[in-house]
Amino acid sequence: MDTDKLSSGTCAISRGLALVGDAWSALILRDASLGMTQFDQFRTSLGIAPNILSRRLKALTEAGVLEKRRYSERPPRDEYVLTQAGRDFLPILAAMGEWGRRYNGTGKLSHLVVSETGERVRATVVDEISGRPLRDLPLRLVMPEAG
Amino acid sequence: MDTDKLSSGTCAISRGLALVGDAWSALILRDASLGMTQFDQFRTSLGIAPNILSRRLKALTEAGVLEKRRYSERPPRDEYVLTQAGRDFLPILAAMGEWGRRYNGTGKLSHLVVSETGERVRATVVDEISGRPLRDLPLRLVMPEAG
Repeated sequence: MDTDKLSSGTCAISRGLALVGDAWSALILRDASLGMTQFDQFRTSLGIAPNILSRRLKALTEAGVLEKRRYSERPPRDEYVLTQAGRDFLPILAAMGEWGRRYNGTGKLSHLVVSETGERVRATVVDEISGRPLRDLPLRLVMPEAG
Repeated sequence: MDTDKLSSGTCAISRGLALVGDAWSALILRDASLGMTQFDQFRTSLGIAPNILSRRLKALTEAGVLEKRRYSERPPRDEYVLTQAGRDFLPILAAMGEWGRRYNGTGKLSHLVVSETGERVRATVVDEISGRPLRDLPLRLVMPEAG
């Protein structure tokens, strides 16, 4: 889809989707959060065609979600690490995981824990100010005034 | 991408992405949450090609995120309404909107309010049990044991 059009629109949701609006991109970020940085690691983990992976890594780098770093000069090799924007996307993936568990969750599935304690984490979306779960709130999306 | 493969894997995040893993699908759900139900409403709002829209509506219906309802027999006309799974996805879109505002947020943008009060809502992802923001927690994704 036309990400330039998404990125110039006035909907905040579209602005997010313009940066990481497909499953491959989101899964690359998941793998980056697991510590993967190298092309071959992503390729093996995802079973993704090399040309598609190249394109997605380039797009995520241009979107400022991954940063490309040269880690070897001979042979020339780059790695990809999460930026602040990329790290800030991970909670959204976690919420996506809870939703996936609820509505597409047959069999044993992965889950999130706090690194040091191993304590189980269940991601849910709340209003930052009132702390109320968004699913309990009747919401309305307000588009900005023209001009 | 191969959504069957995503759907049979053991990662809860993939399970979510298998149901709505692209920008068009997410934007259709956004529009459905704004009250749109008809093919032409989605088409006009999104500027999406009719064949792509048909395919996405079919996939979202098969995934159980939208429900297709016949609302006119002559001429035959269907509408698409959010299921419980679809409504439960909206908080994730809201979190995506806050992230889009933060990292791709030039100009005036849409925002969420509580329907009756008009009170501003800022979506953020927390751990349901401890209430702690996920961005402050060092997390680890645990894959299930084989077998």
